[in-house]
Amino acid sequence: MTVRGAPAIGVTAAMGLALAAKRSKHNDKSLLLLDLEKAAEIIRATRPTARNLSWAVDRVLRKAREAADQGLDIRETLAAEAQLMANEDVEANRRIGAIGAELIQDGDTILTHCNTGTMATVSYGTAFGVIRSAIAQGKKVKVIATETRPRQQGARITVYEASADKIPTTLIVDSAVGITMSKGMVDTVIVGADRITRTLVANKVGTFMIALAAKYYGIPFYVAAPATTLDLTAESAPVSIEERDSREVTEIAGRRITPKGVNVFNPAFDLTPLELVTGVITDKGVFSEEQIQNMTKI
Amino acid sequence: MTVRGAPAIGVTAAMGLALAAKRSKHNDKSLLLLDLEKAAEIIRATRPTARNLSWAVDRVLRKAREAADQGLDIRETLAAEAQLMANEDVEANRRIGAIGAELIQDGDTILTHCNTGTMATVSYGTAFGVIRSAIAQGKKVKVIATETRPRQQGARITVYEASADKIPTTLIVDSAVGITMSKGMVDTVIVGADRITRTLVANKVGTFMIALAAKYYGIPFYVAAPATTLDLTAESAPVSIEERDSREVTEIAGRRITPKGVNVFNPAFDLTPLELVTGVITDKGVFSEEQIQNMTKI
Repeated sequence: MTVRGAPAIGVTAAMGLALAAKRSKHNDKSLLLLDLEKAAEIIRATRPTARNLSWAVDRVLRKAREAADQGLDIRETLAAEAQLMANEDVEANRRIGAIGAELIQDGDTILTHCNTGTMATVSYGTAFGVIRSAIAQGKKVKVIATETRPRQQGARITVYEASADKIPTTLIVDSAVGITMSKGMVDTVIVGADRITRTLVANKVGTFMIALAAKYYGIPFYVAAPATTLDLTAESAPVSIEERDSREVTEIAGRRITPKGVNVFNPAFDLTPLELVTGVITDKGVFSEEQIQNMTKI
Repeated sequence: MTVRGAPAIGVTAAMGLALAAKRSKHNDKSLLLLDLEKAAEIIRATRPTARNLSWAVDRVLRKAREAADQGLDIRETLAAEAQLMANEDVEANRRIGAIGAELIQDGDTILTHCNTGTMATVSYGTAFGVIRSAIAQGKKVKVIATETRPRQQGARITVYEASADKIPTTLIVDSAVGITMSKGMVDTVIVGADRITRTLVANKVGTFMIALAAKYYGIPFYVAAPATTLDLTAESAPVSIEERDSREVTEIAGRRITPKGVNVFNPAFDLTPLELVTGVITDKGVFSEEQIQNMTKI
């Protein structure tokens, strides 16, 4: 949890593999590749929900094998590849921002959940990048940030990033989304994604209930993520939902807020059916549920 | 906020008026009644959402006027009336429990929001009283308690009361309700109410989103409250939603959890359309949306 946010997790995994190559004692190609595969296994298991993690690990391992086949220096190749992926992430975020900003009207108030800005990516952000791009276009945009229990990424990070950008921001608790929408205070919802399958969006726990409320009030609900977040392999495969330490729920800022001994269920993500999503904003364009269901590759 | 929970608020208001009568310096009936009306005005303004508050104030004032007309001691009459109302609350809760318990199956897991037990009433509880009654009938019932941000009545009070009753309880953050339901972990939802009109249930913020999720998954969603919570006067009148101090959101257990200067929207309640409610469990029976819409009196 030192690194969070699916795009940041992906690039960090690539950097981690480049480091693993650098630290390996083996100069024999096969033994070095074996070290890399061991490192990949450890990295892959850390965050099962984030699609970008397995995507990044697969890409770097493939690159390592190609380098070995072609007699190139594996360490140098992986360091360059990881840096390239970091650059690509920023570029993808900028494109997501530019494409998504077209969906935002001057004067809109955008509700977002969790954190999807610079600190969830290499830089700029996904859903938060769309907000930034709309503002860069000269549109006046306000933000409503949800607290995002249990780890409060909205209250801690999104509020901080919005304040650094001087974006007018209102903080609400997660369960106030419905009443906030009912008062006409929300024009659009934009959230990020940890994995998008043909039928579901895995994202921070609470996303699904926000989507339900948006549907009820007829408010557009967008998901913004790099195309690498799409998992087209999983027709209807179950998405593994990470469960985290119960202390995330029972303690806040190191203080216990509930009687001892209580059982806790603490899923980090939830699954939003694509039928509740108005559009998925990626660096390759905005896609509907139907388009994603029929996609063969992106 | 020393007293919370609509039924507890109502009875405390009655006790407050009995105290105001006791403390009045006037023995002249008209002047004593004037003092009571002033006290009533102060009390009434404290918690505009809770129906039971205005109901209790109206009842005690009416009783004071009757006592004055009949030449009875106003102070003694009000002390007796307030005590009667306290006893009636416990009795109503026991009836709500007995009636509601019939809707619970052996082995059910019941999700509840906020706190509706002894500490929200004079004793026993409304939604929590239904759970208690089902257990008293010998049914094995488990509870899922939502944290209930911002004031965490679920994590602090419901978890405490359930643990005192040795009821197996799992705590979740508010935004985990959807994913918890999607895993088949919830058989029934029971929540309390601060005010029930012909079309809406005002209850702790977050109730509406839980009702939406329950509807989505076809899980029964019950509201449990004394009949005095019904506000049949309000055909479609707007319900006043209390907004509270932003520090409830920005601080937890006295610690700041968000950057300074952020704007906060902190509504204490939300409004759930009765169309999302399977039934309203009262001490007078279980009522459907249609029955409440056509009710002339309860």
